[in-house]
Amino acid sequence: MVFSSTLLENAVNEFAKLPGIGKKTALRLVLHLIKQNEKEVRFFSESIAKMRAEIKFCSRCHNISDKELCNICSNTLRKQEILCVVETIRDVIAIESTQQFNGIYHVLGGIISPLDGVGPEQLQIDSLIERVQLEKCNEIIFALSPTIQGDTTIYYISKKLKGVPVKITTIARGIAFGGELEFADEMTLAKSISNRIPVENYIVTGS
Amino acid sequence: MVFSSTLLENAVNEFAKLPGIGKKTALRLVLHLIKQNEKEVRFFSESIAKMRAEIKFCSRCHNISDKELCNICSNTLRKQEILCVVETIRDVIAIESTQQFNGIYHVLGGIISPLDGVGPEQLQIDSLIERVQLEKCNEIIFALSPTIQGDTTIYYISKKLKGVPVKITTIARGIAFGGELEFADEMTLAKSISNRIPVENYIVTGS
Repeated sequence: MVFSSTLLENAVNEFAKLPGIGKKTALRLVLHLIKQNEKEVRFFSESIAKMRAEIKFCSRCHNISDKELCNICSNTLRKQEILCVVETIRDVIAIESTQQFNGIYHVLGGIISPLDGVGPEQLQIDSLIERVQLEKCNEIIFALSPTIQGDTTIYYISKKLKGVPVKITTIARGIAFGGELEFADEMTLAKSISNRIPVENYIVTGS
Repeated sequence: MVFSSTLLENAVNEFAKLPGIGKKTALRLVLHLIKQNEKEVRFFSESIAKMRAEIKFCSRCHNISDKELCNICSNTLRKQEILCVVETIRDVIAIESTQQFNGIYHVLGGIISPLDGVGPEQLQIDSLIERVQLEKCNEIIFALSPTIQGDTTIYYISKKLKGVPVKITTIARGIAFGGELEFADEMTLAKSISNRIPVENYIVTGS
């Protein structure tokens, strides 16, 4: 792409560094910003710089936060004895959006994946074990990807927690609401049959 | 979406205002920026604010520019007597990228489209007529969209230029290189037959 302005070129190149944004999309975004008034664009630019400069990670659950402790950890109305273990901050946002979970979180920062060079020491596993032992924790819910890596991580952490009096569960796998049986993969369908639930429970939770 | 940090929320909301970017994509972009080092993110943010604050439009061709006259208009090596009329700045970038055009441009800022409330007075048509009359202009090449609106604009401007000794042309329409005949629309195919070119010319320009 040939630009008649270095200011334009710099802005396009910066946008094109973002994941999933190519040069053409970057140009479209920049031309959109040119049409906006200067104050709005300054607000856009400042909110990004400020976010990067001031963002913290919660010292307890490693979720993104404005303060030392995140809103979720410091909320005394939430059940501090139920801990949901997730891979990333994105999973916290997804679960929070359901408004169905009232416990607290622990963000691992990934899952054990030797092929990608991610071992237990790169993840927040030690701090999880420590939390479970120190804090009054009744239940750990694993909400990890249903992959070999996710299962390995669950297995590894469960083994580490052997002897610690805590209930360990994982979120239910099965056919999604609105999902059609004929298009489900065999593994999911098989698991959804072996882990079948009494209809009374289904009606309470599903409707 | 429920966020545990207002800094994160603000940044995501700002990104989600951009065209074609929803909340989920915005979150992905922001989480990517959080992983980058602070200096890089500041550079990203500053390049956008600076671009918006300092960008100008060339007083002659209305292309985007850093100075009063854009790089193309002020380049004395370019043929100042061949004028290519385009809709938007994006078209200038597209044509420049071909490295086949050595004249100068005139950016209309859109095309005549009464249904969208765009009449000749909203476009840079008067300044085009003025330029053609004042500057030593030999040829005007219309590179507009092949739509009714584009054709209307060409017709309107051509009529305004009646009596002015200037050659008026439009870019060739036809089957694109790599395009398959059977998938071409009838209009394009019909035009490409009626506007056929001698094979000598084709070999010179097409190979």
